[in-house]
Amino acid sequence: MEKSLVVGVDIGAQSSKLGIVDARGNILCQSVITSLQNELSEYVDDLVKAIEALIDQVGGKHLIKGVGIGAPNANYYKGTIECAANLTWGRDANGQGIYIDFAKIVSSRLGIPVAMTNDANAAAIGEMTYGAAKGMKNFIMITLGTGVGSGIVVDGKVVYGHDGFAGELGHTISIRDGRQCSCGLKGCLEAYTSAIGVARTAQERIKNSGTPSLLREIPVDKITSKDVYDAAKKGDKMALEIFDFTANLLGEAFANFIAFSAPEAIILFGGLTKSREFIEKPIIESMNKNVVSIWKNKVKILFSQLKDSDAAILGASALGWDL
Amino acid sequence: MEKSLVVGVDIGAQSSKLGIVDARGNILCQSVITSLQNELSEYVDDLVKAIEALIDQVGGKHLIKGVGIGAPNANYYKGTIECAANLTWGRDANGQGIYIDFAKIVSSRLGIPVAMTNDANAAAIGEMTYGAAKGMKNFIMITLGTGVGSGIVVDGKVVYGHDGFAGELGHTISIRDGRQCSCGLKGCLEAYTSAIGVARTAQERIKNSGTPSLLREIPVDKITSKDVYDAAKKGDKMALEIFDFTANLLGEAFANFIAFSAPEAIILFGGLTKSREFIEKPIIESMNKNVVSIWKNKVKILFSQLKDSDAAILGASALGWDL
Repeated sequence: MEKSLVVGVDIGAQSSKLGIVDARGNILCQSVITSLQNELSEYVDDLVKAIEALIDQVGGKHLIKGVGIGAPNANYYKGTIECAANLTWGRDANGQGIYIDFAKIVSSRLGIPVAMTNDANAAAIGEMTYGAAKGMKNFIMITLGTGVGSGIVVDGKVVYGHDGFAGELGHTISIRDGRQCSCGLKGCLEAYTSAIGVARTAQERIKNSGTPSLLREIPVDKITSKDVYDAAKKGDKMALEIFDFTANLLGEAFANFIAFSAPEAIILFGGLTKSREFIEKPIIESMNKNVVSIWKNKVKILFSQLKDSDAAILGASALGWDL
Repeated sequence: MEKSLVVGVDIGAQSSKLGIVDARGNILCQSVITSLQNELSEYVDDLVKAIEALIDQVGGKHLIKGVGIGAPNANYYKGTIECAANLTWGRDANGQGIYIDFAKIVSSRLGIPVAMTNDANAAAIGEMTYGAAKGMKNFIMITLGTGVGSGIVVDGKVVYGHDGFAGELGHTISIRDGRQCSCGLKGCLEAYTSAIGVARTAQERIKNSGTPSLLREIPVDKITSKDVYDAAKKGDKMALEIFDFTANLLGEAFANFIAFSAPEAIILFGGLTKSREFIEKPIIESMNKNVVSIWKNKVKILFSQLKDSDAAILGASALGWDL
């Protein structure tokens, strides 16, 4: 019987989404598991069980061509997850990211071939095949979630680089010697413009200023980016300034990215894009202010047209066809 | 008769180098003209004359397959030079870069097809074909000359981007709201790490500090990067600090570039690489300090193995074969 289906898995720091996809890009069924297990073996057990449950739903393993997985710090060439310190089971007792032969482990458990890439690369492939980047040959996907990821497409292909890790734009420096980032560096784009970064900005401003704000009604260490969004919706000045600050840094960073690969568009994806009404305009202004004149007002800022979970599953699943 | 030769032209802000190249990459003859003409028509006259003189030397136009030109802000797709404010004949009376249909102009004068690319892309192609990047599929060429240019190679191909202008890494921001750059932005890498940038650093330090230095023997506005090099050779503390400062900014920038395309190596080329003994070690230290942990001590810093003029001519000429 023809192997006419693939499995797509999107591993995030908090949760993992998985689904079975057919050749036309329909997600036949899907599920979610937590990613917060303490041990790798627990996580793999849970993931394999969840994949097998979906495979049973669609009619059995003989129909599955391959499994494509998008994960933080995943290596396309080697099928590994390396130094992913933001995964609870991806670090050692000292909090250092470890080297995991992930594709091999999952493949041997399932008896199905497995390919991996960076979660943001997977989202870029999904967007190129089904979303806002349809027909584009040069674009940059920026995922604004718990972290900040990126998938760079040049001439119709994802850039993997010499070692398979290309596209870590969340760890380019936004503010020299700035805020500590989870990656060990200081002042990374991710430390400011991820969901966690936005919450940290709010916490800092509450602690370091006397400005009145609705955010003061929340215990300071509990403030989330969602709280900032809710306050901004009510017109809270501090919340609006936090989004301006965040968007300004994104625009500055995008100006640098454009000088690299001259994309047709930068496509934004992930939780923070729910705040589009507060960040879109200042991102565009900041980008055009900071970019070389040949690109002023030329590069589109687009927001993903796919649901968060769909884009990641579809993108990851696309890797499965080549197995 | 078989068209067995190509012409390579490297247009720099100060001078243009040109040569005739055979299929094995031998430069059969070459010459240099100034690039400092005030008018485009004067420059084109001088260039066409110089090309025709070389063509006569090798036996005539019927032997020439095409002309490849590397130039600042050249567009590979359109054969244009756009907004090249650092070319005397590339800007209008207000100093704004203009749009020049350069390949078409030169082609119609010579009666030979002409292709163009960014001068740094041309150098990258030369380095990939004959130099330090031989056999590499992923590297970044950085040209440290009057300006700072870049040619990015991903998966064996130069990155041109959506509009043909990709790879303007000299205009990524090094110091936010820093020194005015010729491109109109502030704080660009080029404003600090080009030959002119190094001279400006020296001039600023002479004016703003009382530190003793051999450089004080030179009229401050006449100081060049060569003077800084000569002083450093004599152990002058200020000159050595200037190279440290410059190398540190380069290393920081390279750390960001690595996060983009994960190159096997960054290859340095151009006048400032003559100061290798003063910049190599601090560049490597700064890069490894600022880069994401997965790339620490992994990306090679190489210096071009080709003579400045050869690499640019060979690289540009390679474009001529596809015409």
